[in-house]
Amino acid sequence: MQIGFIGLGHMGRPMAKKLIAAGHQLTLYNRTPEKARSVAGAKRAERPEDAAGGEVVITMLAGDEAVEQIVLGEHGILGALAQGAIHLSMSTISVALSDRLAAAHAAHGQIYVAAPVLGRPEAAEQGQLFILAAGPEKAITRCDPLFGALGRQRFVIGDRPSQANLVKLSCNFMIAAMIESLGEAMALVRKGGVDAHRYIEILTGSLFAAPVFKTYGALIADEKFEPAGFPLAMGLKDVRLALAAADAEAVPMPFASLVHDHFLAGVAQGKQHLDWSSLADIAAANAGLIHKPGRAE
Amino acid sequence: MQIGFIGLGHMGRPMAKKLIAAGHQLTLYNRTPEKARSVAGAKRAERPEDAAGGEVVITMLAGDEAVEQIVLGEHGILGALAQGAIHLSMSTISVALSDRLAAAHAAHGQIYVAAPVLGRPEAAEQGQLFILAAGPEKAITRCDPLFGALGRQRFVIGDRPSQANLVKLSCNFMIAAMIESLGEAMALVRKGGVDAHRYIEILTGSLFAAPVFKTYGALIADEKFEPAGFPLAMGLKDVRLALAAADAEAVPMPFASLVHDHFLAGVAQGKQHLDWSSLADIAAANAGLIHKPGRAE
Amino acid sequence: MQIGFIGLGHMGRPMAKKLIAAGHQLTLYNRTPEKARSVAGAKRAERPEDAAGGEVVITMLAGDEAVEQIVLGEHGILGALAQGAIHLSMSTISVALSDRLAAAHAAHGQIYVAAPVLGRPEAAEQGQLFILAAGPEKAITRCDPLFGALGRQRFVIGDRPSQANLVKLSCNFMIAAMIESLGEAMALVRKGGVDAHRYIEILTGSLFAAPVFKTYGALIADEKFEPAGFPLAMGLKDVRLALAAADAEAVPMPFASLVHDHFLAGVAQGKQHLDWSSLADIAAANAGLIHKPGRAE
Amino acid sequence: MQIGFIGLGHMGRPMAKKLIAAGHQLTLYNRTPEKARSVAGAKRAERPEDAAGGEVVITMLAGDEAVEQIVLGEHGILGALAQGAIHLSMSTISVALSDRLAAAHAAHGQIYVAAPVLGRPEAAEQGQLFILAAGPEKAITRCDPLFGALGRQRFVIGDRPSQANLVKLSCNFMIAAMIESLGEAMALVRKGGVDAHRYIEILTGSLFAAPVFKTYGALIADEKFEPAGFPLAMGLKDVRLALAAADAEAVPMPFASLVHDHFLAGVAQGKQHLDWSSLADIAAANAGLIHKPGRAE
Repeated sequence: MQIGFIGLGHMGRPMAKKLIAAGHQLTLYNRTPEKARSVAGAKRAERPEDAAGGEVVITMLAGDEAVEQIVLGEHGILGALAQGAIHLSMSTISVALSDRLAAAHAAHGQIYVAAPVLGRPEAAEQGQLFILAAGPEKAITRCDPLFGALGRQRFVIGDRPSQANLVKLSCNFMIAAMIESLGEAMALVRKGGVDAHRYIEILTGSLFAAPVFKTYGALIADEKFEPAGFPLAMGLKDVRLALAAADAEAVPMPFASLVHDHFLAGVAQGKQHLDWSSLADIAAANAGLIHKPGRAE
Repeated sequence: MQIGFIGLGHMGRPMAKKLIAAGHQLTLYNRTPEKARSVAGAKRAERPEDAAGGEVVITMLAGDEAVEQIVLGEHGILGALAQGAIHLSMSTISVALSDRLAAAHAAHGQIYVAAPVLGRPEAAEQGQLFILAAGPEKAITRCDPLFGALGRQRFVIGDRPSQANLVKLSCNFMIAAMIESLGEAMALVRKGGVDAHRYIEILTGSLFAAPVFKTYGALIADEKFEPAGFPLAMGLKDVRLALAAADAEAVPMPFASLVHDHFLAGVAQGKQHLDWSSLADIAAANAGLIHKPGRAE
Repeated sequence: MQIGFIGLGHMGRPMAKKLIAAGHQLTLYNRTPEKARSVAGAKRAERPEDAAGGEVVITMLAGDEAVEQIVLGEHGILGALAQGAIHLSMSTISVALSDRLAAAHAAHGQIYVAAPVLGRPEAAEQGQLFILAAGPEKAITRCDPLFGALGRQRFVIGDRPSQANLVKLSCNFMIAAMIESLGEAMALVRKGGVDAHRYIEILTGSLFAAPVFKTYGALIADEKFEPAGFPLAMGLKDVRLALAAADAEAVPMPFASLVHDHFLAGVAQGKQHLDWSSLADIAAANAGLIHKPGRAE
Repeated sequence: MQIGFIGLGHMGRPMAKKLIAAGHQLTLYNRTPEKARSVAGAKRAERPEDAAGGEVVITMLAGDEAVEQIVLGEHGILGALAQGAIHLSMSTISVALSDRLAAAHAAHGQIYVAAPVLGRPEAAEQGQLFILAAGPEKAITRCDPLFGALGRQRFVIGDRPSQANLVKLSCNFMIAAMIESLGEAMALVRKGGVDAHRYIEILTGSLFAAPVFKTYGALIADEKFEPAGFPLAMGLKDVRLALAAADAEAVPMPFASLVHDHFLAGVAQGKQHLDWSSLADIAAANAGLIHKPGRAE
């Protein structure tokens, strides 16, 4: 398939490679062109619109601002995409922007599908992402060969593209809430003299035998927050977007609010670059478990 | 082994049967004697102390008050247990009471092991409980044949018996926090038009493929809170004990505090008999998702 | 002074009248022109820009959207205000918009002063508002005759106009937090059998002898939430803006977050038109104190 | 009147002096006898029971444990107080203990009145306390000459003595919530460049012109948390008792829960001896406003 691919960051690059390996013809665009050049076997576009000439253009960008610029900005894809062609939006963006993009593409006779993903860069490299897709059923079917190359499973959420963004944001809230829960529980048992690694073994060896508990439990027990797999600043962004959606729908989410406040505390204390699992470190600090020399309180 | 077994409720009865089936000689005591009579192949005791003549006496009771009465009260086991014999305390009780019992037994030359369990009555029937044991290492080893009959796995937490109670309480906090998280996330996506069952399929089919998410996700999506597998009132009790331990150790647990407040709201609204997964129903009601005619609040 | 006055709602109308009574020449604009006609002794403008011909133009509008439209929109005041003339912005708007307006006016050689007010419509009628002013010192001095006609006291916050908006939002947060605190405390003592009115007498007769406690304590004890002096929906809007400012500055505000969630619950349950003191009613409902037959939530 | 007075701490000593000055005959008891000796014009008792020979015995102690010991312990006043004599309990204690004491005294034909106070030691010295009294109406009337010597105003809460304790605890919750609210609001405006003292001037010069806002606002703006007028550890104790009462009555108090968690964080970080207004310092630290040299995060 002729595909434009825009956004070659930590996630986008391995995804583009997977699509090339699956035999698709890609035209790549990235704001800093070096990143596009580093992927072999694909054409490169000078401007976003130059990547929008095929049947599908995929965006995999850092957030609302970048997507808005690439789609609606100068030389954006909205002006270049053919009638009936698909904008497959895989970035984690707000529900509100997703709704705006759906309307804008519809007004141009184009099709908008939202398909954010669950998984870290390693999962992208192995084509093992989980894909959350929403939009017109036929358009999702047309994208299925791409989903097959990128992910281990594709879930269809509904007809309205922004529903996929909503579910994606809710999943990131679920992970953040799990980290906070673990952080509080571990602070409690550690102050009671229980070894943190032993504790994670017990949890993941019994009721909580899920990948997220293993991954994040290990990071927290090891207090290994650098390099960040997913930085606290990005976690804050996603919880902020979840709360914005909750506000728009009048859904009280007190856990999400608390997590948001703890992320803000992290940023205020200069931890935005640490992995978001360092939320647990804030819980530990609040419990007085961190007494580094020189700490003045 | 000669074993006393005190407390034949939903959990105690299947556990006692498993021990009998494994060839142990049990003497049963229950406050209401009918329940003791309903278990075949065992002797029955008139008073708690009469069940404390063997090498081990197991208590599996509803909470602090009952255990305190059975151990320290009139005709309690403290006065009857032999030197070097073991009180194996499997109830979910407070850290503070567990510490008091450890001291009381030590003062009588007896041994106290705490070994609360993770799992519902069905797991007890199948001998598939997870057992969290803490206390003197040799005493735990002496109990291992019993643990083998009752559970699929036995975790040793530490030397101090109350550490097992602390970990058990923390696990119940983790489950309650997971229910609240799910409740908030599901209220959000439902108001966005996403089907609740579809949502649970996605979560448990991707990152959250753990037993607890499957069990509780199904209960919440089905809004099936009766009959209660574990009633809200018991959930409240356990979170209260977790918070008491946190207070004693100076560990702030804002998620636990919020869950506690939501459980209180459930009780205030007459829902104490519903399954504790109905915490999610409170989140749904707060989001305006429940509009039943004649609803009495 | 030649003054344009834009926005003749519950607050704007009595304020305009006070300025007219003090001898100023007003040109009024309101989106629905009837409201402008109902104020005697002033000229009327057809478009916002037509009200911006004097030394000062005052805006007193419902929120960000209206102010943005009036200032930056078609026929907005930005294009009409003379060099060196003042836009005196008295609406409760976001810190972010206030910063944008300051920059826009500066680029046009105009002066922007923010001066939101504390007080209800009755205070406006009596010229007894508290005025929170920020901006260039000389410009504030030029506005002092106006402040004198409108308020009992004018506080200067700082040089940056948006600081006045920040303080105003923080004050509304303080009131909302006070309402929630009262709501919780009153639910507690009422369930303990203490009379709500007696309780308010005690609080306001001892440590809490401030106007806000008297005003809101009476509303809550009387359960008189209609007609709304300040509707819950407006309270939600202001707490949302306070949280947006807090997010931008990385300030965790867990009380504000909780209040926001409770306001959302109010909206979700159809209470947006009630007075914001009905936050206390939500606390009462959560405590099971409200058992109305057929209650629709 | 013949009065026993037990407990000569920061509050008890000035109160005893006021009663002596008003012409009453006091017999003093204090666990450490030096403090009793330091008050002139009164007899001294060797044991609590020796202070209980008059018409009224007043207790003004640190908390539940001390009161329980003095009343119900060995040589306690329960065994010595005459039929029809009054135990006037002015300490801040739990609702549950107050109920127990009422029952114990009733069983001995004695009368129990609870009358905790609002006010700091300086108010006690000036006889300017606010007194919250509950119990049998006639008994309160009998105590009125004492209340007149001690306080500027006496409020009658109800028939059940523990209602006075409940109201007292709710008042301390209200103060703590006010401190937290101020802490959050001040962190917000300070990060926006507004001077903390200016901010307090505005608040207390407009809507929040109450003594508590002036007192605590000044402490927080000055960051003057030592010496403590009321230490954080005592604040924690009182919020804990308020939450215990709320738990017993099934009243969710999320603000109280949050304040409790923040107090715990204070204790965990070694601040239990600071004034409880240092709650605001925790909010400031969470917002990154405290950057002391050597601080490791």
